[in-house]
Amino acid sequence: MTSPSHGGDPEFESQRAHQILKEVLKKVKPDQAEVERLERFARFITDKIYSAAASLFIEIEVMLVGSAARGTWVSGEHDLDLFMLFEANQTRAELELNGIEIGKYVVKQDYSDEEFYCISYEKEYAEHPYIKAVFGDRMGGKYEVDIVPCFAVTDPAKIESAVDRTPFHNQYVLSKIAGLEDEVLLLKQFMRGIGVYGSELKRQGFSGYLTELLVIHYGSFLKVLKEAANSWKAGMRIDIESHGKYEGADPLIVIDPVDPMRNVAAALSIENFGRFIDGAHRFLESPSIDLFFPKEPAPVEIDEFDEIASRRGTRFIFIAFDRPPVVEDILYPQLRRSATGATELLHREGFRVYRDAVWAGRHHAVILLELEVATLPAIKKHWGPPVWKRRHAAKFRSKHEGATYGIHIKDGRYLVDIERKYTDAKDFLGANLRKGTLGKNLKNADFAIIEGKKIFDLLEEEDFKVFLRTYFEPRLTT
Amino acid sequence: MTSPSHGGDPEFESQRAHQILKEVLKKVKPDQAEVERLERFARFITDKIYSAAASLFIEIEVMLVGSAARGTWVSGEHDLDLFMLFEANQTRAELELNGIEIGKYVVKQDYSDEEFYCISYEKEYAEHPYIKAVFGDRMGGKYEVDIVPCFAVTDPAKIESAVDRTPFHNQYVLSKIAGLEDEVLLLKQFMRGIGVYGSELKRQGFSGYLTELLVIHYGSFLKVLKEAANSWKAGMRIDIESHGKYEGADPLIVIDPVDPMRNVAAALSIENFGRFIDGAHRFLESPSIDLFFPKEPAPVEIDEFDEIASRRGTRFIFIAFDRPPVVEDILYPQLRRSATGATELLHREGFRVYRDAVWAGRHHAVILLELEVATLPAIKKHWGPPVWKRRHAAKFRSKHEGATYGIHIKDGRYLVDIERKYTDAKDFLGANLRKGTLGKNLKNADFAIIEGKKIFDLLEEEDFKVFLRTYFEPRLTT
Repeated sequence: MTSPSHGGDPEFESQRAHQILKEVLKKVKPDQAEVERLERFARFITDKIYSAAASLFIEIEVMLVGSAARGTWVSGEHDLDLFMLFEANQTRAELELNGIEIGKYVVKQDYSDEEFYCISYEKEYAEHPYIKAVFGDRMGGKYEVDIVPCFAVTDPAKIESAVDRTPFHNQYVLSKIAGLEDEVLLLKQFMRGIGVYGSELKRQGFSGYLTELLVIHYGSFLKVLKEAANSWKAGMRIDIESHGKYEGADPLIVIDPVDPMRNVAAALSIENFGRFIDGAHRFLESPSIDLFFPKEPAPVEIDEFDEIASRRGTRFIFIAFDRPPVVEDILYPQLRRSATGATELLHREGFRVYRDAVWAGRHHAVILLELEVATLPAIKKHWGPPVWKRRHAAKFRSKHEGATYGIHIKDGRYLVDIERKYTDAKDFLGANLRKGTLGKNLKNADFAIIEGKKIFDLLEEEDFKVFLRTYFEPRLTT
Repeated sequence: MTSPSHGGDPEFESQRAHQILKEVLKKVKPDQAEVERLERFARFITDKIYSAAASLFIEIEVMLVGSAARGTWVSGEHDLDLFMLFEANQTRAELELNGIEIGKYVVKQDYSDEEFYCISYEKEYAEHPYIKAVFGDRMGGKYEVDIVPCFAVTDPAKIESAVDRTPFHNQYVLSKIAGLEDEVLLLKQFMRGIGVYGSELKRQGFSGYLTELLVIHYGSFLKVLKEAANSWKAGMRIDIESHGKYEGADPLIVIDPVDPMRNVAAALSIENFGRFIDGAHRFLESPSIDLFFPKEPAPVEIDEFDEIASRRGTRFIFIAFDRPPVVEDILYPQLRRSATGATELLHREGFRVYRDAVWAGRHHAVILLELEVATLPAIKKHWGPPVWKRRHAAKFRSKHEGATYGIHIKDGRYLVDIERKYTDAKDFLGANLRKGTLGKNLKNADFAIIEGKKIFDLLEEEDFKVFLRTYFEPRLTT
């Protein structure tokens, strides 16, 4: 199975592929001016952090990490991760307090006479609290900056938290990436195009670091695609440094070159793993630039939604929670767990969910349930003990003596038809949702259960309507 | 767990039980005149068979077997089993031909000057063909007679067919039953009252021989009930002669005293096993003569059916076959297998059957399906191969490229929503029933699929309407 193409003449397809990759690079690779501008800003902000630390009498080393440090950033994407390395002899609390103090000192300065200035900032929470800021230049350019504290450890085996690992990732990639940067750009853009880029828990896709490792391992964008298409399947294991000790059942396992216990692809869902293989097939069979730059999915408006729903003949029930004040990386896993909980609750009762999905906006966190069986009869079966369990049997019989339809015996057990309290899934959910498994922050959140197109009264956000489009029509066709 | 009663004062209940049993016996035990009359007829018909055999130069021995021979028959029930024992050196064909010849010779005689006369007869098929006749006397009495050929074997281990075993059963019971006949009558009537008497495959209950063995084993009607209530459970094993070699998973195993390889209770269903234990509980807790002589279930008429169906909120679908020309013992197992086949067919498609039942009348054989889920959406899931099966994946993608809602990936496999051909269980069954498992004689029988009360247009038989009553309200409450 090494034939690179099914679609037509392999030679021709391959030439076409190379042509397309050139076009893609033209769009995603920053030009000299953009690179210089970002480097200039990186130097500027690095100096600001050093001088802020000096003013506060705190000793740190500043390190630019991430794609900006490695030349693997896509044009227009100006995200800078600036890590402040603290000596490892400090406490975690000191590191966090000092880290925030320096960050605030940086963003609150007077930039009126400077080349760059701070537009906004906020305190965010990952492993440690850190400052996230947006800077601008006088030409309308914008820069997202994360100013993150971590411990300067000498050995990645001794890290205190995940962020401490980042400088090692940076060193590793820098030592291997020279000459492969363009390949990384192609892979990132391809993954973005087919919707699998980003390891945040909303997306569950490939991280930037993971794309870099894949290119380092296989050697080029096309080689990554060919390997994915020809030899990847669930359980695929890549161990560049041949030192892996990680044992897990993830769809893709890429052992971290700086940490044998860690799977870099741990956040990748089986769906996105599959989507990437599918995308690789499609590109190799029939190369197209559309895979890199797909059309934006059109929002689904109320009338179309109504029309689709009635064509499908299913019923749509939305559980709309008031959004709890947590970040997406915390919210999405809870929403998914809650969707599974609600589905199990419905299934235990005899309703049937066709498919589910979750979405979160500014004010709401929503579970979409598409129901295949949304109404049930007025009666349901209620099983009793085996007839030969004499005391239980007597109790059951006396309890159900007045049963409308008498007591049955089936497979040696008593069985009565009892009235179902809720014959409609919507009513049932309304009364029982809190009995199911709900994520921690959703347990006490207010919620409304909304059927069908009424959801448009509550949610007018464009992003929700786009979410509906991807629900109905996933981006798997070119 | 030896307390005989939960219902009230044990002493009092016990006295009441004995009082009730006396009343029952008064009703079911034939009086002297009825006994003499049956004995007189038995001698009459035995003589007729002997003289018929003599006229045809066939050598046999005639043996009256069954309840009439053992004094365990219920008043009004005048069934006589007359077995003709042939020497074992004959072929099976000879036995069958000669058996029928004698039978016909008996029933076709001129009885105009005799005390008894033949009203009707027919040829029936069990292990061998045999003559089944109805005789009458001049006082309006009626007698059902089976004239059955069998081989006279000396050892039950050497029998050729099941009927050859019957003479041994007869001898065994006769050697043990003296003084216990009334107890057998009570047990038979009790089982009849709660609907578990009769080992024919329509009923799947207790045979007459089985009731006799239970009384012989436990010693009395009440002891049978107490043991059933206190110590029976599925898998109960009784081996009177301690010689059993039968290994099966039947709910009740009673080793045949004349054949260690045979379970006398093999025909008993787990439902009827359970019903008997339940009935025993109920009688011991609160003795009542109603258990022996329940009210006849009232037929369910069309309006009540309609009312019940809409109260339950389920949908009733009847599969009405033209009745194939086979006896009930062949038809009922096929009907049950077919009902299971239809249910599985529906479940595989996503419909859901709440409960099913079968009934056969003169012209029709009917499967009742009560549906919990009778309609489904316009779409259903169609799973494709895992995305990493490259050739299958490519085939699947190209086949479903135009899919209305695109191709999804779930758990690493392709998935599309396709149109469901039949969204209604009735239409689906009509088109697919023959693809399911149907009994041999039903496979090619014409059938109609009829919904709800329309079945009353086809089936006007009282017995069907009574069947509906027992479907809705099984006789498990006194």
